Amino acid sequence: MEIIENGGLLAAAGFRAGSARAGIKKAEGEPDVALIVADGPASAAGVFTQNRFAAAAVRWNRALLPADDVRAVLVNSGNANACTGERGEADARASAELTARLVGCRPEQVCVASTGIIGHFLPMDKLTAGIRAAHAALAADAAAARRAERAIMTTDTRPKSAAVRHRVAGAPFHVGGMAKGSGMIAPHMATMLAFVTTDAQVAPELLTGLLRDATDLTLNRVTVDGDASTNDTVLALAGGASGVHIGKGGSSREAFAEALHAVLASLARQIAADGEGATRLIEVRVEGAANDDDAETAARAVAESLLFKCAVYGGDPNWGRIVCALGYSGADVRPGQTTVHIGEACVLKEGVPTGVDAAAAMQGKEITVAVSLGPGPGQAAVWTCDLTEAYVRINAHYST
Amino acid sequence: MEIIENGGLLAAAGFRAGSARAGIKKAEGEPDVALIVADGPASAAGVFTQNRFAAAAVRWNRALLPADDVRAVLVNSGNANACTGERGEADARASAELTARLVGCRPEQVCVASTGIIGHFLPMDKLTAGIRAAHAALAADAAAARRAERAIMTTDTRPKSAAVRHRVAGAPFHVGGMAKGSGMIAPHMATMLAFVTTDAQVAPELLTGLLRDATDLTLNRVTVDGDASTNDTVLALAGGASGVHIGKGGSSREAFAEALHAVLASLARQIAADGEGATRLIEVRVEGAANDDDAETAARAVAESLLFKCAVYGGDPNWGRIVCALGYSGADVRPGQTTVHIGEACVLKEGVPTGVDAAAAMQGKEITVAVSLGPGPGQAAVWTCDLTEAYVRINAHYST
Repeated sequence: MEIIENGGLLAAAGFRAGSARAGIKKAEGEPDVALIVADGPASAAGVFTQNRFAAAAVRWNRALLPADDVRAVLVNSGNANACTGERGEADARASAELTARLVGCRPEQVCVASTGIIGHFLPMDKLTAGIRAAHAALAADAAAARRAERAIMTTDTRPKSAAVRHRVAGAPFHVGGMAKGSGMIAPHMATMLAFVTTDAQVAPELLTGLLRDATDLTLNRVTVDGDASTNDTVLALAGGASGVHIGKGGSSREAFAEALHAVLASLARQIAADGEGATRLIEVRVEGAANDDDAETAARAVAESLLFKCAVYGGDPNWGRIVCALGYSGADVRPGQTTVHIGEACVLKEGVPTGVDAAAAMQGKEITVAVSLGPGPGQAAVWTCDLTEAYVRINAHYST
Repeated sequence: MEIIENGGLLAAAGFRAGSARAGIKKAEGEPDVALIVADGPASAAGVFTQNRFAAAAVRWNRALLPADDVRAVLVNSGNANACTGERGEADARASAELTARLVGCRPEQVCVASTGIIGHFLPMDKLTAGIRAAHAALAADAAAARRAERAIMTTDTRPKSAAVRHRVAGAPFHVGGMAKGSGMIAPHMATMLAFVTTDAQVAPELLTGLLRDATDLTLNRVTVDGDASTNDTVLALAGGASGVHIGKGGSSREAFAEALHAVLASLARQIAADGEGATRLIEVRVEGAANDDDAETAARAVAESLLFKCAVYGGDPNWGRIVCALGYSGADVRPGQTTVHIGEACVLKEGVPTGVDAAAAMQGKEITVAVSLGPGPGQAAVWTCDLTEAYVRINAHYST
């Protein structure tokens, strides 16, 4: 498997992207509408937020997917169209209808996604103009991918994309993707929005299963602030242009799962590293747990401890906060069997402080915490970022 | 029932308090050892952290309580004596033994409590001198209560105390208390440390039950940052000096429960209002839930939403974050039945945004969020504070 630098969404053949500024997002001059169009009907699968106040776009997609004939994905940033009642539903449908007319398909062949403030109606006049402009801008070159990545950003400070080339029996196929994250990032669909394309042929149900599995181990393992959004969405489109067919089992399935995992894992790390106000990426790995669920529970508690995240920000080797979080996590943690490393520094060995200074391991852009809970087979990794004054500043004045 | 202003711990007859500076806590000149001594054997009950890494002091107390002959409570701040293995256990025992010799009782008649950094051994030479000095300073006057309140503080910015006088068949009794909170404040024993005294006569088992009930509705409803400490402890001592006997049922039990609830509720609000870096107290009330547990789950999700807490700091009426938190809380929330008030402003009425501007309701030192989830009987209140840059600053450099 090869990583395609700067590949992104259009590394897979058979897709175009177009973007435009509709004026929904405040950031001056930045695009806020993105359109992804498949050259022909594509297999499509989605994984969505579990928030009870699921946004109109999420409900629209849930009704459509999985499907074997999706032609387009419309995304807007700056407005979540969540908690907007029947008018919000009608607005989501109207935007899919307009997109369908432009692309030349039925509205039910168009997925939609929104991100931004909750509880405000979509400015449909602006969005309508934006959709038309984004459609007019459709292209398959790298610049189009880059602009689409910017169009879905809200408080993200940088675009996020990943792509790989992999082979089945020597024949190459591609998986590419883009995502936006930053705030309101939490368990139960961790990313705000992620879009994956592939030129492999993958049946919708198979794509759904593989997407769910890969999401569980990647995007669902990112937590910035524990707030699970109303709009979280991962969509995958498989166009088939490579001619490589992915079967329900065997080596082709394995290769595709590997490629999909690589793209989503890269996006997950990018989202964590660019959490609102973040200065450092934190990876929390737990092994030796009773089972994988317990390992995840323990890792998540550490990754969501505000106190630990503040300590990482300060470069402060206050490892007691790691241990404290493990202790209240609800996982089966036994103090006498617990060993904790920060980077290479072993700070706690089977429940006893070692006295090793972890100050050096708390510097750098990436901090790794490795916890062993005992002899069990369970393991998990979770990604997060430090908690900084900038996070507070960004979120104290987001709507006003 | 009357509130006794500035009453605190020594509003109840039959107790003395003494404090000293041992030099464990960094804050220059501040006392860091407090000793509470009952004139005779007292009924005692405790409620403790559920953290698996429960500190040595917590384990010591758990083995003792409930009991009918407790004479003293020793508290130190600046060091949690948590995650310190067998040496930590021995240190806790040694400090109880020294206290017992000074007071003239058995070590098993002495409760201990610690708060401060995790994973460091207690400086026993300093603590020993501090215990002797605190014992020498024992007194029953208001100044002694005030100094004890300061001795248990860590990052608290102000002491916390409450006291009430209540009556059974015309005969007065008192319940007083002090607490410290600030950081690492979360569900499952929300306060770090709280101590309650009463001159009513209450049997240990009855005191345990009443303390647990009152704690569940007060201190366990405070959340500052979702981090449940290794040391959380609530201790209640009933000395009986008032001669008022509290029975297992009837009006005396009711009066005592009411007095205990009033003291703990006051301490809970004081802890929330003085959360690390806090500028505003937030009360989240949920009613109309399927049951009380669901109401608490929903209220807690709002109270622990970093995004909402940042919005409160900024005075930003971004109520979508309240709705989002309700949606991912796990409680049985139905968007079409959900109504949300911020102060007097109704921002969401049965799932539909009202357009009412809540900006004015987001000002002031106390913000109230009232949520109705429908026609159910369940209700709950949770207290928290806003999330500020100061919280991050305080916790980025706590140990170093």
